Amino acid sequence: MKILFVAGDPKPERWTVPIRELVPDAEVYVWDPEGPAVNADYAIVWQPPEALFEREKNLKAVFNLGAGIDGLLKVPNLPKDLTVVRLEDAGMSAQMAEYVLHQLLEASREMETYREQQRQGVWKIHRPIKRSEWPIGVMGLGHIGKRVARTLADLDYRVSGWARGQHSLENVTTYAGPDQLGEFLNSTRVLVNTLPLTDATRDIIDYDLLSRLQPGAVLINVGRGEHLVENDLLRALDEGRLLRASLDVFRKEPLPAGHPFWQRREITITPHISARTLRDATLEQITGKIRDHAQGLPVSGIVDTSRGY
Amino acid sequence: MKILFVAGDPKPERWTVPIRELVPDAEVYVWDPEGPAVNADYAIVWQPPEALFEREKNLKAVFNLGAGIDGLLKVPNLPKDLTVVRLEDAGMSAQMAEYVLHQLLEASREMETYREQQRQGVWKIHRPIKRSEWPIGVMGLGHIGKRVARTLADLDYRVSGWARGQHSLENVTTYAGPDQLGEFLNSTRVLVNTLPLTDATRDIIDYDLLSRLQPGAVLINVGRGEHLVENDLLRALDEGRLLRASLDVFRKEPLPAGHPFWQRREITITPHISARTLRDATLEQITGKIRDHAQGLPVSGIVDTSRGY
Repeated sequence: MKILFVAGDPKPERWTVPIRELVPDAEVYVWDPEGPAVNADYAIVWQPPEALFEREKNLKAVFNLGAGIDGLLKVPNLPKDLTVVRLEDAGMSAQMAEYVLHQLLEASREMETYREQQRQGVWKIHRPIKRSEWPIGVMGLGHIGKRVARTLADLDYRVSGWARGQHSLENVTTYAGPDQLGEFLNSTRVLVNTLPLTDATRDIIDYDLLSRLQPGAVLINVGRGEHLVENDLLRALDEGRLLRASLDVFRKEPLPAGHPFWQRREITITPHISARTLRDATLEQITGKIRDHAQGLPVSGIVDTSRGY
Repeated sequence: MKILFVAGDPKPERWTVPIRELVPDAEVYVWDPEGPAVNADYAIVWQPPEALFEREKNLKAVFNLGAGIDGLLKVPNLPKDLTVVRLEDAGMSAQMAEYVLHQLLEASREMETYREQQRQGVWKIHRPIKRSEWPIGVMGLGHIGKRVARTLADLDYRVSGWARGQHSLENVTTYAGPDQLGEFLNSTRVLVNTLPLTDATRDIIDYDLLSRLQPGAVLINVGRGEHLVENDLLRALDEGRLLRASLDVFRKEPLPAGHPFWQRREITITPHISARTLRDATLEQITGKIRDHAQGLPVSGIVDTSRGY
């Protein structure tokens, strides 16, 4: 069996050495832009180049090094019938849930104000929050969205969820499809975006959507930068329709120098770190699936490429 | 029935008006330091003066406006056989759990570094954390400690708990009593203190204890200021045995101006806000117990005053 590793890691041996240990009978190759075809059976990829699919014609499946597969699906010559397998969790949903909670508290519990008070040597207690004043809405109810919703519901927040299809989740009010989006937004003050990026969700967070949230709204975007219309966010902040935004993803990453987001006090910027791919858990999952697939066993996480996630 | 409200709130009507609504057949009084005895049946108190127990001789029970009853038990003339009832949760444990998680992420996920990077306009991704590198130990396994432990365990952290007596908690390794304290500390990097303040726990967090934590240790104190030997904390920070401390409680509150804690970059100070008494939930709980007690029904949360919690 031949496995090809195709990701822009400057130290690919951090991946290939453990892959060889986990699949001892495999020949493991690192993608060489100038090299010949290796006739790989499986590719492990992150945002691969077109050349991959020009050159490697025997791929049985391609394994994506992340939950979001928009970077893979936009490769124009990705064969339509190729099996695409996304990363499932691998430690990401818990990271995402705790990041969202952290950013929620930055807004709801005024943590920056308390830090500023410390710098000034001031002891001042602010009004406590009531959970009823901070209803949360999670867009996207995949593995990550569900984990975020569950964590917040377990902490006694009022949580709603919205997704394209019907979902059922304990202690979470769920809404489905475009028809129920308005109702979902009306019930939401803190909007958490965990949607996959598809043609249907691109630019979904625009001025109109932000205007339908409850007063003093907060946006936490851990989905993709392309979900958000950037100028609409600035307008909503300028007009006071939005209190704060925590952004971990951007249309262009790294966020360019001089971008207006950098200097806005109401925006918290993190460099796409809300959930990191953890190498050990990721490799264990992917190599396990490769072994299963090679033996003809079913594997989970196969992407519906026509749907886009 | 007569209920006496004894707490230093400058607007006691915020409490007495709802109490009258919740217990319509009660006469409700506000403590008047100069006033006569009212022969109250029940007192609702926060750090009451000695004069209360000199003057009111017919109290059937006293209800504390917080989970920690050290401020009540230290009143020297508190009658030994008086029924003392603590506040149970009333929204506090969820607040405490989210506060602890927030402070944990400040340390483990370097959130201050990311904020500083934003101020500088820098996009730089740091090494992701492994949960295995951040084992958490919760001291005190009362209602609050258990909730903190459970929340962190649900987020896939390795969590231990230590208390005087035996406790059993899903996905949490528990240790009991002085004999197992060393083992608990050895397995802990992030120490969360939720202990009650008693003669046995006063000054428990000293240099020796802090030195037995894992390297790069973090202290999160949401118990009481008197649990912590302040100079020992500074020494542990100076010597690099402790990486960071998040302190919500202090020996003297407000923390005095000029106190060395204010200026330490490794210390985060919040003004006793990790968990706030929420008036609605508190009053509903206490008045419910008063009604039950008056009818001879059992009530939960009665304090063992000899034990101190």
